[in-house]
Amino acid sequence: MRSLRGVLVSAPFIAVDWGTTNRRAYRIEQGEVVQTERDDMGILSVPAGGFPAEVAALRARFGGLPVVMAGMVGSNRGWHDAGYIACSATIEAVAAAMAHPEHGVAIVPGVCVDTPTRADVMRGEEVQLLGAVAAGLAPADALLCQPGTHNKWAVMKDGAIADFTTAMTGEMFALLKAHALIGSEMAGEVDADASFREGVEACADADLLAALFGVRAASVLGKRAPGEAAGYVSGLLIGGDCRARITQPGQVVHLLADGLLARLYTAAITIAGGQAVVVDSHASFVAGITRIRNLMP
Amino acid sequence: MRSLRGVLVSAPFIAVDWGTTNRRAYRIEQGEVVQTERDDMGILSVPAGGFPAEVAALRARFGGLPVVMAGMVGSNRGWHDAGYIACSATIEAVAAAMAHPEHGVAIVPGVCVDTPTRADVMRGEEVQLLGAVAAGLAPADALLCQPGTHNKWAVMKDGAIADFTTAMTGEMFALLKAHALIGSEMAGEVDADASFREGVEACADADLLAALFGVRAASVLGKRAPGEAAGYVSGLLIGGDCRARITQPGQVVHLLADGLLARLYTAAITIAGGQAVVVDSHASFVAGITRIRNLMP
Repeated sequence: MRSLRGVLVSAPFIAVDWGTTNRRAYRIEQGEVVQTERDDMGILSVPAGGFPAEVAALRARFGGLPVVMAGMVGSNRGWHDAGYIACSATIEAVAAAMAHPEHGVAIVPGVCVDTPTRADVMRGEEVQLLGAVAAGLAPADALLCQPGTHNKWAVMKDGAIADFTTAMTGEMFALLKAHALIGSEMAGEVDADASFREGVEACADADLLAALFGVRAASVLGKRAPGEAAGYVSGLLIGGDCRARITQPGQVVHLLADGLLARLYTAAITIAGGQAVVVDSHASFVAGITRIRNLMP
Repeated sequence: MRSLRGVLVSAPFIAVDWGTTNRRAYRIEQGEVVQTERDDMGILSVPAGGFPAEVAALRARFGGLPVVMAGMVGSNRGWHDAGYIACSATIEAVAAAMAHPEHGVAIVPGVCVDTPTRADVMRGEEVQLLGAVAAGLAPADALLCQPGTHNKWAVMKDGAIADFTTAMTGEMFALLKAHALIGSEMAGEVDADASFREGVEACADADLLAALFGVRAASVLGKRAPGEAAGYVSGLLIGGDCRARITQPGQVVHLLADGLLARLYTAAITIAGGQAVVVDSHASFVAGITRIRNLMP
């Protein structure tokens, strides 16, 4: 692991990023990962009442250290509801609001937007966002993007999560592919290729529900090869997501992603007039959870 | 049935509106419906090779008259592919392009938009659109809307279908309710009530994918009663659909709908700054198919 600027080193501990379908655990010493494992033991795989035993087994494998957990393990479907703290959320406020389901175990709270006009929630993403800034991987004032099933766009101000918006971009793609009339056309692979770019361009001209039906019409009229529809639909969705958030030319977006999602979002952000900077989301998580651990009372 | 202005009367015939899941047949004499039946014998219920026998049985029940059919029976999944004619499509052009799978049976072609930048298709809706104008139920220059699974918005010019846009509004609602994370919140009934109107208002401020995730966030934060989410989501989708099409204040929309869909679209069109005029879609179909029959070579 790289050394993490701006993150105080601390006593060894176990960090767990515990999501709905996956779990990743780290033994962190002096801000560095010295042991890690990843499995599909997401919270939905843990039987009722099974969390204490699961965590005890994890601690046994990782040297019996204190545990700091983030993600859906802290939801009302997880082990213990860690609640939400409202934006603007600093890393200090997160560290001050940890939940403690048992001795030696702390769970990071989620972050919410709760105003008369808008509601939004995140759980797990806050560690990466705050960690990216804490580690100097993103500036203290920045627009951060975390692509995924429920894509997060966070406005960071002075290192805090000042505001954020979630878009169901990834979930919508999966829904359309699995269940929509146009799903049968979405057989091809998706990449940041010509079909994807065509979708990103097209979403500027048409509302989404009409553009999506256009996929069916293009197929019926023989205007698009079947293998190209998946990339086009991905471009429509991701392009719309980026266009809604990039409101000024040259807007820099720090992208917490790698692989395919980093390629797709980089392409879409560029076409939408922005500028993407890819940030190491893994390093951001480690930095964030270490910083939170150091700040815990 | 009301008498239909502008429609020449004609010799008796059988009209069939034959869709994917339903079928409606009419015996029409002097432009009036004298016998009708409706069943769930949509094209997907007809076994391979079964159309000639189905149509023979129908003709036997309706007095052995000539048959004029519209809808998905003329698609490549139906009896006989009747093709598409391109916009701008007059009722004369439709009548000149009828397909004839067997003697005494004619199928109305679909209508398409096929330009370098846009593709769209309809099949069945063209009879109502052209019939509404032929019967004087809508002006020759008008914006017509046919709500449904794949909602059609047609720009009529001089009585022809000059251009149209399809939005997958109804399909999207069904997809979200059945398969999305927010589907579990969409248990309530939908009507043109406060929740629906709230959705129509909200869709002006947020892009759809973010607004939809907001339903989940509002639920998690206890900001919306579970029974209200279905109406709100319907408002987001129908509101977005109407706002995309109503580009000037006071825009009149002739709405080929009745019941709940007429109430929902009337409310959304009004909030979006337009003015809805409900048109009898059943009378429009009868007028359109009668006029097409009269014009057939």
